Amino acid sequence: MPKKIRLGILGGGGDSLIGVLHRVASFINDNYEIVGGCFNPDWDANIAFAKEIDVPTNRIYKDFDTLVEEELKLPAEERIQVCSILTPNFLHFPMAKKLLDNGFHVICEKPMTTTLEEAKILQEAHKKAGTVFALTHTYTGYPMVRQMREMIKAGVLGKIHKVDARYYQGWINTIIHDKEKRSSVWRLDPKKAGISSCMGDIGVHAFNLVEFTTGLKVKSLLCDFNYLYEDNQMDVDGTVLIRMGDHVKGVIRGSQVATGEENGLAIAIYGEKGAFRWEQEKPNFLYKMSDTEPLQVYKPGHAYNSELSLDGTKLPAGHPEGIFDSMANIYKGAAKAIRGEKYNDGEFPTMIDGVRGMNFIESTVESHKNGNTWIEME
Amino acid sequence: MPKKIRLGILGGGGDSLIGVLHRVASFINDNYEIVGGCFNPDWDANIAFAKEIDVPTNRIYKDFDTLVEEELKLPAEERIQVCSILTPNFLHFPMAKKLLDNGFHVICEKPMTTTLEEAKILQEAHKKAGTVFALTHTYTGYPMVRQMREMIKAGVLGKIHKVDARYYQGWINTIIHDKEKRSSVWRLDPKKAGISSCMGDIGVHAFNLVEFTTGLKVKSLLCDFNYLYEDNQMDVDGTVLIRMGDHVKGVIRGSQVATGEENGLAIAIYGEKGAFRWEQEKPNFLYKMSDTEPLQVYKPGHAYNSELSLDGTKLPAGHPEGIFDSMANIYKGAAKAIRGEKYNDGEFPTMIDGVRGMNFIESTVESHKNGNTWIEME
Amino acid sequence: MPKKIRLGILGGGGDSLIGVLHRVASFINDNYEIVGGCFNPDWDANIAFAKEIDVPTNRIYKDFDTLVEEELKLPAEERIQVCSILTPNFLHFPMAKKLLDNGFHVICEKPMTTTLEEAKILQEAHKKAGTVFALTHTYTGYPMVRQMREMIKAGVLGKIHKVDARYYQGWINTIIHDKEKRSSVWRLDPKKAGISSCMGDIGVHAFNLVEFTTGLKVKSLLCDFNYLYEDNQMDVDGTVLIRMGDHVKGVIRGSQVATGEENGLAIAIYGEKGAFRWEQEKPNFLYKMSDTEPLQVYKPGHAYNSELSLDGTKLPAGHPEGIFDSMANIYKGAAKAIRGEKYNDGEFPTMIDGVRGMNFIESTVESHKNGNTWIEME
Amino acid sequence: MPKKIRLGILGGGGDSLIGVLHRVASFINDNYEIVGGCFNPDWDANIAFAKEIDVPTNRIYKDFDTLVEEELKLPAEERIQVCSILTPNFLHFPMAKKLLDNGFHVICEKPMTTTLEEAKILQEAHKKAGTVFALTHTYTGYPMVRQMREMIKAGVLGKIHKVDARYYQGWINTIIHDKEKRSSVWRLDPKKAGISSCMGDIGVHAFNLVEFTTGLKVKSLLCDFNYLYEDNQMDVDGTVLIRMGDHVKGVIRGSQVATGEENGLAIAIYGEKGAFRWEQEKPNFLYKMSDTEPLQVYKPGHAYNSELSLDGTKLPAGHPEGIFDSMANIYKGAAKAIRGEKYNDGEFPTMIDGVRGMNFIESTVESHKNGNTWIEME
Repeated sequence: MPKKIRLGILGGGGDSLIGVLHRVASFINDNYEIVGGCFNPDWDANIAFAKEIDVPTNRIYKDFDTLVEEELKLPAEERIQVCSILTPNFLHFPMAKKLLDNGFHVICEKPMTTTLEEAKILQEAHKKAGTVFALTHTYTGYPMVRQMREMIKAGVLGKIHKVDARYYQGWINTIIHDKEKRSSVWRLDPKKAGISSCMGDIGVHAFNLVEFTTGLKVKSLLCDFNYLYEDNQMDVDGTVLIRMGDHVKGVIRGSQVATGEENGLAIAIYGEKGAFRWEQEKPNFLYKMSDTEPLQVYKPGHAYNSELSLDGTKLPAGHPEGIFDSMANIYKGAAKAIRGEKYNDGEFPTMIDGVRGMNFIESTVESHKNGNTWIEME
Repeated sequence: MPKKIRLGILGGGGDSLIGVLHRVASFINDNYEIVGGCFNPDWDANIAFAKEIDVPTNRIYKDFDTLVEEELKLPAEERIQVCSILTPNFLHFPMAKKLLDNGFHVICEKPMTTTLEEAKILQEAHKKAGTVFALTHTYTGYPMVRQMREMIKAGVLGKIHKVDARYYQGWINTIIHDKEKRSSVWRLDPKKAGISSCMGDIGVHAFNLVEFTTGLKVKSLLCDFNYLYEDNQMDVDGTVLIRMGDHVKGVIRGSQVATGEENGLAIAIYGEKGAFRWEQEKPNFLYKMSDTEPLQVYKPGHAYNSELSLDGTKLPAGHPEGIFDSMANIYKGAAKAIRGEKYNDGEFPTMIDGVRGMNFIESTVESHKNGNTWIEME
Repeated sequence: MPKKIRLGILGGGGDSLIGVLHRVASFINDNYEIVGGCFNPDWDANIAFAKEIDVPTNRIYKDFDTLVEEELKLPAEERIQVCSILTPNFLHFPMAKKLLDNGFHVICEKPMTTTLEEAKILQEAHKKAGTVFALTHTYTGYPMVRQMREMIKAGVLGKIHKVDARYYQGWINTIIHDKEKRSSVWRLDPKKAGISSCMGDIGVHAFNLVEFTTGLKVKSLLCDFNYLYEDNQMDVDGTVLIRMGDHVKGVIRGSQVATGEENGLAIAIYGEKGAFRWEQEKPNFLYKMSDTEPLQVYKPGHAYNSELSLDGTKLPAGHPEGIFDSMANIYKGAAKAIRGEKYNDGEFPTMIDGVRGMNFIESTVESHKNGNTWIEME
Repeated sequence: MPKKIRLGILGGGGDSLIGVLHRVASFINDNYEIVGGCFNPDWDANIAFAKEIDVPTNRIYKDFDTLVEEELKLPAEERIQVCSILTPNFLHFPMAKKLLDNGFHVICEKPMTTTLEEAKILQEAHKKAGTVFALTHTYTGYPMVRQMREMIKAGVLGKIHKVDARYYQGWINTIIHDKEKRSSVWRLDPKKAGISSCMGDIGVHAFNLVEFTTGLKVKSLLCDFNYLYEDNQMDVDGTVLIRMGDHVKGVIRGSQVATGEENGLAIAIYGEKGAFRWEQEKPNFLYKMSDTEPLQVYKPGHAYNSELSLDGTKLPAGHPEGIFDSMANIYKGAAKAIRGEKYNDGEFPTMIDGVRGMNFIESTVESHKNGNTWIEME
């Protein structure tokens, strides 16, 4: 294995949850070394955080543009190779584009951009750049999600005819029911949070999981949002009817007001010959169903699993790995790509997932605003 | 307790599953004695079955009309008091109507009728008759379903803002995927099976559960069916968006092609202050969720349960009671009503549930045929 | 099917839980008719209860001896064929013996007797009588318990090398921690309750389940009880090490002070080729484990189940049947035997289970009193 | 936060599972930097592994003694501060002792030593050294294990009267049933593996969990092993009766032949006022039981959890953390101690746990060899 990949971090300082998730994920398989970045627009906070996590301060930059400018002055063998973009959503696009345009690899949080138009521009930039772009749809890194994908690809379910996914959380209840809070929080301000709350933040994960596992594409959708209050302009709940081909239908359900739900991402996929059920909160249990045979429970680390699944497990069966390990698998796949090593399709989500995601989000909003009509996805 | 109620059975002979379910349910609380009926239109089978279950053959009739005619000749204190209607769906309406018109009490399987129009006529007949009409939405008899209802009524969840119900089965897979079978089976022949397969047979149970537990009414719905094959005319899968009031939304999902699902009726109800989850296949576990407190698991038979719930439990906590016991609770409630005893709202589903159910089924079909538009329920 | 079997009930009146369990079980498969009995030593209560459940009062007797005397005067074709003994434990033996001696069939609650000596006498009486004797170890009637037994018999697990059973309840906590209560309740008075509380009441069920499912016999055991308080003379908790052959070992754990446990009977059986886990509170889920294959979940009603299992299921998979249905299966097996029909081994527990159970209970007490030494079972 | 702690690793090279577990755990909270070590006695493998994980090779040493010698020559501010001992068991003692004697901090895998005598010597050495010694009983790092401990300490269960722990695995089945394998593998060779297989490797974890969570000490025990074959000299299965005070009893069950079990560590603790159940394979669900209230399910990350629990959670509720995160929590606690920061009792297992563990292992062996007699623990 060559030396560790030189990683720069954008955002993710202080108590940022996404920060610790990416940082740990980068460490887990001994592939990356954090050599610099810009954790915070505030210089004091930026430097303080670098010291707190013991990253050398000489390559901590005052802002993103300076980072690019200064790093480009360094010889290629010292330069940051890849940046992880963990900033607020509206910055994903300009940062990712500039990085790609300047020959950096990019690991980017979702949603990839704030509009489909931006996503397509980024896609073009990526084609020209020829560097690696990985989108952190974290949940695709779970060994059992990978196992579903591989078994479906191998035809274990036969033709798929129905998909049912949901992503239910309840955390926005504490905000939405308080008139003052719901009118002041940035999350519910369309100017700051973009066109969608529930679908943009979590529904898109469920959508991605549907396409990632089935290998099918959503062709059209019909969506109904719930805003809960007249004075709230952002969707906090929504149900999306989907069509994925002739007589292949399904539903994607998202909510941030599903009281008591924590991080309830789940999927069920039904085919002619069998079905799968999986839930994110019990990620190491994959249920394979059949009309005639006993239900089977697949678990990570067993020899019966696919190569893609086993590549994402570090310990034998029965030793629970979690979301940090899942994200680490995406970083591991990206590391292979950055190093030009062989890797399998599915090891990390790509630009295509990003474009599809933005297409999904915009389509749900359009359907709802149109009075719940069917929208064709591109 | 007075003497056992004299019960007549219509249909349910031979290996009929619904037959054994009702028969056992009628026995469980020592309330009913089967004194006659007509189990089968074939006379030999009719009599043979009566002998098999050791019911005296002198009041086994060759057909329904004869039953009514002959029983009316008997003195009131010997006459059948209540008939259970377990015949094919299209017979529910004429039988129930004639029974009501002649002063009998009725216990009727769902769907109550084949059209909403019939349902309304029956409702009128019932008003005139003044006898008891119980509709066997079996699942409302489970102690934990009753507990949900009572806790919601008591305000434990606060204002409800979201409901998510499903009824998933996979059994029709073995028929639908076979061209010959799907074109010949009565279940998928609109002339024999009525206007809907999935919604008529099981979706309506989910709908009933939603209204039974929340106390809310579905005001409008939008439905998309899946027929799976061009040459199939009956819905075998469908998703229904529902609206239950201002900003109170939800979804009802039904399927007969959800491969590997057995009898997957489930409901989740989310309110401002808490939420419930319940699954029919684990009927004795009721999950109460909160955004801030540990999840709670309610079980039958504990003193913390409501009167309505405890009335449906015969043994202490930890002794699983099942679907026969659930149906028996409905028979128990009906017995109280037939005897003129005091009983609580919710002890058995009524004519109103039947009318609502037919309204739901017709509305889903109308919405789908209209191109997935919103339909107002009455 | 011949006419219903004429059943007499001894005990089980009023609010008796065991009463309703047996009564319902006798009804469920249309095999029995309650024609008489003695529900209560108090005459008024006896008659009142008969009226409450609408059993004709002409064959309700003032006491057990009168019942036998009077019934014997009736012609055989009218006479009670079988009596269910639901009385306090100390009456099981004298009643069962007299019934057998007089040519009646017997269905008897456990523990069969109060001592092993009585059990052996009863066994002799049974041999002479030649009538049917069924012991209601209720849990053996569950379809998934039967499925375990049949699969093990068929060699699916290979050689068994370890068994782990438990029966944990918490209900005695409310008594045992109160000095007054624990010194006054009959359950903890050795004179009234017999030599063992925890092992006699519930541990023996776990023991029975071990022998029923594995087909192996416990050869020796070592037991340690917990009395919890110096002034308490009855075991309320105990752990039993068992040996079932060369290098075949296991443990049976029983407790009535396992706080919060309701009716926690469970078993795990480990063999060279596979293993089973089953829990009474989720009786319709049987877990088959393997070191190399995905875990499998067996459920009742599927065609993959054994004949013995399927014979105990009335509805298709996914319709939960419970403890009443389980007991009903034992009544169903006994009915076949009483009618002289063919039945399979395992359809109901027999005299042999009763003798083994008493042997187990006495051995645990002996081991504990001896200072936790190994006791050979007969 | 000061700079990262300088960590040396002993053992854990190549595909070592324990190696990756410790390495990742050391990274997770940004506390440690691996600056050197000796991964492998083979020099080429040693260096190759250092390169593979991109650790500078200048402080990779040919053997342990050289490491100590060379590091002591370095100025204190450059010197390795703490070594993680991941070598085969028999090396734990000599390495740990020499490290402590020379003023290093130690993080040590279990079992701490091979005998109780060694453990006591080490304890003395530790007292003299005054440095930090952390024993990696990994499972004590789980947030829900910590939550149990804190709630028990706060009196939530009242007086504890019963404990039931198990650690079941099935992996040794593939060896033990093969005569050739079982006579040749080092795991089953007492000369190489020490006095106990099952209790030494996993039973001791269950024992540790019992004492860690309850705060009680096992006072005496009685143990029965199963060797499965005459020609096998090592326990692969065992049941241990324990006594923890007057009328406080319990059982610890361990097995490596529990077919199909993966890493089945679990505990149930019953007290006068409540009880807990927890299972390692679903580590983020803690069940609190009561005789009268609904069961409660505690999950990590909620504000209702204790400080000790919350300190071990990095993400909000619903984001599963696993065994790497659990081990990381132990490393985090040790880091606080190494830096002289304030930390809470329970943040990492100590020398005392190590001595207790060896005492437990030796006592189980002694009890079994004595013919299953009671052994007093020190």
